[in-house]
Amino acid sequence: MTIEFFFEISSPYSYLAAFKIEELARRVGAEITWKPFVLGAVFKHIGSGPPAAIPQKGVYMMQDLRRFARRDARPFTMPPVFPVHSIKAHRAILASRKLRDEATMVRVTKGLYEAYWAQGKDISDMEVLGEALAGMGLDAEAVEEAMKSQEVKDELRQYTDEACARGVFGAPTFFLGDQMFWGNDRMDFLEQAILEST
Amino acid sequence: MTIEFFFEISSPYSYLAAFKIEELARRVGAEITWKPFVLGAVFKHIGSGPPAAIPQKGVYMMQDLRRFARRDARPFTMPPVFPVHSIKAHRAILASRKLRDEATMVRVTKGLYEAYWAQGKDISDMEVLGEALAGMGLDAEAVEEAMKSQEVKDELRQYTDEACARGVFGAPTFFLGDQMFWGNDRMDFLEQAILEST
Repeated sequence: MTIEFFFEISSPYSYLAAFKIEELARRVGAEITWKPFVLGAVFKHIGSGPPAAIPQKGVYMMQDLRRFARRDARPFTMPPVFPVHSIKAHRAILASRKLRDEATMVRVTKGLYEAYWAQGKDISDMEVLGEALAGMGLDAEAVEEAMKSQEVKDELRQYTDEACARGVFGAPTFFLGDQMFWGNDRMDFLEQAILEST
Repeated sequence: MTIEFFFEISSPYSYLAAFKIEELARRVGAEITWKPFVLGAVFKHIGSGPPAAIPQKGVYMMQDLRRFARRDARPFTMPPVFPVHSIKAHRAILASRKLRDEATMVRVTKGLYEAYWAQGKDISDMEVLGEALAGMGLDAEAVEEAMKSQEVKDELRQYTDEACARGVFGAPTFFLGDQMFWGNDRMDFLEQAILEST
């Protein structure tokens, strides 16, 4: 049983989900495939935009995020640079897998989520990104080199195209086979579906 | 402690919430003020539209609603007439309070939710609406007469204006003082907030 986890670094609800999905998977004995994608490209594909584009929704989302962060006991800050250009961060995540392995990719994903959503760092800045990667024990120059490879660029594009093709419209989105679950707040339905299918 | 419950008859998540809010209120010893409002007017005010206007979101919402209906053990059907013109139903709800009392209004609200979301009846049709009201033991003609009163029309407008003024952007929306909670899926946060403030 595999959970496909589509996430976007600039999505705060994806940040919350990224720190809960492994525990969920352990509880039910499932595997996780981590799939970074470019949410902005999905919004463009379906003709929508970020929820906070509606001011009333933006104001409320901040309260909602603080409630979830408190419940999950996760540090949360509204980054000074938001929305952030997240292509580099996503490529760094995929480059870390190319250079090492899946476990490193997961560690880098969570590290970059914390750099951005807990510490408010501008991870679209290559210098800031490099420091964050070095802080996780990676060779920042090697990662930056791998980020420029066609393979890494193609992977990010493929996950984004896949998200579009499978009807994704927000982040995080989980798939269990062809069952889709949207949102940090639907992980309970995801877990229930896994339990019922095993 | 009072929960203000802003609901719209054409909103399926409001339907689910309407059948859970009384039990929640009982558990925590809170009162409920039921406030029907016109969601379409709120969408117009904030420059947005219904979620299902984005096809991918519409497809997913049906799955999501079926998951909630199953969890809540609530009958759920996608009504043949959707979206429905809900002004008459909202006025009938307010007219029933004018003619009788708050308890009758709540009973009529739940009855009309079932007529529409469980039985798929077109409650924008005055004849169908009248039959539903008669089935709940009300004098349909008297309700229809009261629906035409300026008082009832004004009440619906006031609740809608109030929703706009307080930053509502969807349904259902709950208020606990100035704390806002949006969605059938945030009733847990609402309950927690009540418990923490008492």
